[in-house]
Amino acid sequence: MSILVVGSVALDSVKTPFGEAKDVLGGSASYFSYAASYFGEVRLVGAVGQDFPQHYMNLFNEKGIDIAGLEKKEGKTFRWAGAYKEDINQRETLSVDLGVLEDFWPDLTDKYKKSEYVFLANIDPELQLHILNQIENPKLVVCDTMDIWIENKKNNLLEVFKRADIAFLNDSEARQLAKESNLVKAADKILKLGVRYVVIKKGEHGVMLFGEDTCFSLPAYPMRDVLDPTGAGDSFGGGFLGYISKKNDTSCNAIRKALVYATIIASFTVEDFSLNRLRTLKENEIKKRIEGFRKILEIENLTQSFGCV
Amino acid sequence: MSILVVGSVALDSVKTPFGEAKDVLGGSASYFSYAASYFGEVRLVGAVGQDFPQHYMNLFNEKGIDIAGLEKKEGKTFRWAGAYKEDINQRETLSVDLGVLEDFWPDLTDKYKKSEYVFLANIDPELQLHILNQIENPKLVVCDTMDIWIENKKNNLLEVFKRADIAFLNDSEARQLAKESNLVKAADKILKLGVRYVVIKKGEHGVMLFGEDTCFSLPAYPMRDVLDPTGAGDSFGGGFLGYISKKNDTSCNAIRKALVYATIIASFTVEDFSLNRLRTLKENEIKKRIEGFRKILEIENLTQSFGCV
Repeated sequence: MSILVVGSVALDSVKTPFGEAKDVLGGSASYFSYAASYFGEVRLVGAVGQDFPQHYMNLFNEKGIDIAGLEKKEGKTFRWAGAYKEDINQRETLSVDLGVLEDFWPDLTDKYKKSEYVFLANIDPELQLHILNQIENPKLVVCDTMDIWIENKKNNLLEVFKRADIAFLNDSEARQLAKESNLVKAADKILKLGVRYVVIKKGEHGVMLFGEDTCFSLPAYPMRDVLDPTGAGDSFGGGFLGYISKKNDTSCNAIRKALVYATIIASFTVEDFSLNRLRTLKENEIKKRIEGFRKILEIENLTQSFGCV
Repeated sequence: MSILVVGSVALDSVKTPFGEAKDVLGGSASYFSYAASYFGEVRLVGAVGQDFPQHYMNLFNEKGIDIAGLEKKEGKTFRWAGAYKEDINQRETLSVDLGVLEDFWPDLTDKYKKSEYVFLANIDPELQLHILNQIENPKLVVCDTMDIWIENKKNNLLEVFKRADIAFLNDSEARQLAKESNLVKAADKILKLGVRYVVIKKGEHGVMLFGEDTCFSLPAYPMRDVLDPTGAGDSFGGGFLGYISKKNDTSCNAIRKALVYATIIASFTVEDFSLNRLRTLKENEIKKRIEGFRKILEIENLTQSFGCV
């Protein structure tokens, strides 16, 4: 099934306690596309500037990602620079330059308008809405966001939440949006905004899923070496919607399984800078880690032991 | 099966954003005993002072806890005062007064020496060793500790770790003891100290189990209202060893199941101050929440979906 993603394609400069990388391929749509490409046909909607290296374009081609929707415009590519602390879960944004994304209102082709699965990656919610307005009959719309949009574009973001099926937020964003420190209560409030499910990403602590009648909690895959957490959340999204689209199943149980795949794809992403790890990642490596994760989660005969206090 | 616990029996004064309690029954052995009493025969070894109210003694009797090993000594009961921040996971210790625990070296009775399951709750590791030296043939020894013992009694603590089967630590203690910020690597180092398993408690983020050939990760039970987190870790220990002793099974899978029970018992503890919630807790409430937790963890046909990228 077809997946359309709109988001940033960026040149990132990243410092972590374990090294640094300058002007490497990044951005929410890049990470998402790479991750989702393991599962389905991905259409990337975004913009880069004249400074965007051709060999980065080739990286998308390598994975069969459809970049007919990736415009090369006059101006500069979106740039982000950040640094991670000794505690790798804490990051500081050093600089952001929107570049060509400041004025980007693409018209989708008829083919793109017919996309079945849509991921509104972390980007200005006005642009998310502009895309959503053009999609004719999506089977599932998932949106992601970040603190600056909650702070500065709340009304647009609330409109996105009204129309999306699933919202992705990290724990601090969920607390910020709901103005509620308890995550269960925050999820309640976010569900009232109109989404059917909210997925709260907690980084090294795993992920929680909340719906009207469901709650699911999944730990993270235990990592020994995290080189660079950049893109973990976006590739998590790619693994998630990739799996859903491949199965063409939006049931609650498919969503739970998709979160397992999302977790595993993200666990590979953080093993290297930029898309380096995902570039070399093979399907059998994914399968092997999924099987390892199953053993980590496993409790044999769980139901049999219950109720025997 | 019989469970012996040595630890503190305390008078706690606690402030949380939701209220406060003064001179209430607390201490690691109190919380442990209460939680374990749902599963087996609990023998409490500890000391209180002349100021310890008789009606607190009755609270142990109510649950059938054997307090023949709880000495009433000249002097004052151990007192702890603490405050929790707006973020309920952060706590500050305001004062500690060891009282009668400063000089407490009990001789166990023959009956106590034959105890099968032993929990060395958070207390001076010298006292933990003093108790351990008297146990004749334990089936399983579990130890808990805290930052001050890692800091001030490291050698005694290492001796405990050499002889215990399972070590309980929270995430910050594991990092402190191993001098390693990555929890997987920290667990590796701690296993080298001699324990067969290390259980790393992450509070609202769940728990991880590490052994030579095993790794298990379990999220916490999602809580809507946490009134007072005091005693969560100790009652977690009680639920854990209580379950193990009841099943008389120390296999890796039994340990995993025991961590589920531990999680659920701890989730009740934090719903009220002191032992208030555990006092009224009924077996059918435990069963119901266990079943709810099973649904929160559940991924139907997980194995079937694996390997189908």
